[in-house]
Amino acid sequence: MKQGFEDAGSAAVLVWRGERIESRHRVAFAVADAAGALVHGYGDPSEAAFPRSAVKPLQALAVLESGAADRFALTPVEVALACASHNGEPSHVSAVAAWLGRLGLKPDALECGVHPPSYDPAAEALARRGEPPSPLHNNCSGKHAGMLTLACHLGVPTGGYVERGHPVQQRIAAILAEMADAGPLPAPAIDGCSVPTFPLTLPQLATAMARLADPGRLRPELATACRRVQSAMREHPDLVAGTGRACTAIMTALPDVLVKTGAEGVYAAALPSRGFGMALKVEDGSGRAAPVALLALLDALGAIDEPARATLDEIARPKLRNHRGLLVGRIGPAPGWPNLAQQFGPWNE
Amino acid sequence: MKQGFEDAGSAAVLVWRGERIESRHRVAFAVADAAGALVHGYGDPSEAAFPRSAVKPLQALAVLESGAADRFALTPVEVALACASHNGEPSHVSAVAAWLGRLGLKPDALECGVHPPSYDPAAEALARRGEPPSPLHNNCSGKHAGMLTLACHLGVPTGGYVERGHPVQQRIAAILAEMADAGPLPAPAIDGCSVPTFPLTLPQLATAMARLADPGRLRPELATACRRVQSAMREHPDLVAGTGRACTAIMTALPDVLVKTGAEGVYAAALPSRGFGMALKVEDGSGRAAPVALLALLDALGAIDEPARATLDEIARPKLRNHRGLLVGRIGPAPGWPNLAQQFGPWNE
Repeated sequence: MKQGFEDAGSAAVLVWRGERIESRHRVAFAVADAAGALVHGYGDPSEAAFPRSAVKPLQALAVLESGAADRFALTPVEVALACASHNGEPSHVSAVAAWLGRLGLKPDALECGVHPPSYDPAAEALARRGEPPSPLHNNCSGKHAGMLTLACHLGVPTGGYVERGHPVQQRIAAILAEMADAGPLPAPAIDGCSVPTFPLTLPQLATAMARLADPGRLRPELATACRRVQSAMREHPDLVAGTGRACTAIMTALPDVLVKTGAEGVYAAALPSRGFGMALKVEDGSGRAAPVALLALLDALGAIDEPARATLDEIARPKLRNHRGLLVGRIGPAPGWPNLAQQFGPWNE
Repeated sequence: MKQGFEDAGSAAVLVWRGERIESRHRVAFAVADAAGALVHGYGDPSEAAFPRSAVKPLQALAVLESGAADRFALTPVEVALACASHNGEPSHVSAVAAWLGRLGLKPDALECGVHPPSYDPAAEALARRGEPPSPLHNNCSGKHAGMLTLACHLGVPTGGYVERGHPVQQRIAAILAEMADAGPLPAPAIDGCSVPTFPLTLPQLATAMARLADPGRLRPELATACRRVQSAMREHPDLVAGTGRACTAIMTALPDVLVKTGAEGVYAAALPSRGFGMALKVEDGSGRAAPVALLALLDALGAIDEPARATLDEIARPKLRNHRGLLVGRIGPAPGWPNLAQQFGPWNE
């Protein structure tokens, strides 16, 4: 038997240069319903992945379910930012700053660390003004503002809210386990923004997203929290990511679909009209392959209408140009993938 | 049989978050000698990859072998730059500008396209001066200066020297085929800098690098060209890449080894003291995995001494830190890989 690239199977995103395959990204995925039944899947269902920022909409549930959001009168803008990996654009930064102000906190209460805005024009504007980036510009600042809101509500110290043993993280872990039907979660690692990231299998993450989509069987506080996250993300897709970002473009073009990206090639999605949740992981962690895989799966599930297909074409099948602007290649799903009927097989063998 | 990530085998570079594998990069490689014999290998030896910039030392041979380098009195600095994917640092840019001046050409003769210097401080200095980047800053400008030198020597038009049908590219293709023992090369695609990139199998690329390392059986002009490329790269590892770059660090620490990176996870290496050539491709094109795989292979071949092992540790096993500087993970070869004896199997089955 030959070993090497041939065994990629069809669950892959390919990178072509000219008419030849140059690189190959393998993809595992799960589609589940709110009862936790696996509807489609490819890969090893027992292998856990770090969901990274793809769980932000689930982490945000704790802020709502606990009553913290009502106590501090969070708006849909703030709920959307709690679910966001935002660009650090002025609209994101000013809203998080105002939110913290309402909590009586300063930006340095955020323990997410500092990086320049992800959106180049915002980073350039900051540099032109000679201003260093602050924690407000961190793509996770909205999630962290939500965590601080929860700490204030719980009456616990805000300092150290990112630590695994802090009541805020313990509450979030409990909600994650409840949503994912996961029992006690395995030991977490540390995420890019310093909070715990708990390993979940793709069926578990898909189940949690299915319950976000179809919360009818959850306890009332959690079901209401899911509906508020849904409507905030639908209302403000620009705040969940930002200008030029796949999450924003996809949710704008497909108002029935909620999507959230995570680092290292993860995507989570909720399809309220179908009651499905979805999770995917690109084996190698590639950010270029993840949105291509997501759209291929959404398309196979019938979730992309013709106008949206045209709008999203450059995300679904990006063209590659070189430094002179010449068209040199393209990225797209492997021919024939995803055939959902076929993909269902491997997980049941 | 389970399908998914399990079948990665041991030929992989892993990314850990905490103590759990987060992402996995599969690697194919070949080690060959100057007679074209495969010494070690993993993957499908018949699958062609685009070598991208990893062939620059081979493309540069045409400038030397043709007599162009002598006619225009190229120095080792210029030969090293012809082999380079440089950082666009002042030392790189000024040397290429002076070289073009000696040919009576201006920077706009370069048809490589424009991108800002790869080295951030150089890009920032340019931006501070309000200067737009020029083709001189393109990481391929030295290679293109070499191609223009060859065009001048051949007495053919310099305009269009990047085109597949131009005598410069035809001459380079012939040298590539001769070095790689490849016969007529398959149709090329277009590289990032607009020149043709010809698909080569990893054994072919490894054979070409072995002949660069051990040119004794080549015709005299080509053998001399190989020796001049060897000594220029050894003498000027800082010009082949630049500050903070893996190629420069590896050649500085290992003066018996020549290495050259290429886009989409390719590395080529020549080991003159062993007479070996080496080529590897990360299946998914990952730039973070390629130097890790290269050093794992060089180590398995006994090419890394103890002082170099310490110097190169951060390239061989990079630590991952988050936005607060916390240690969150690491990258390294899969446990047990590469076991060269085992890896040799698959290609002979």
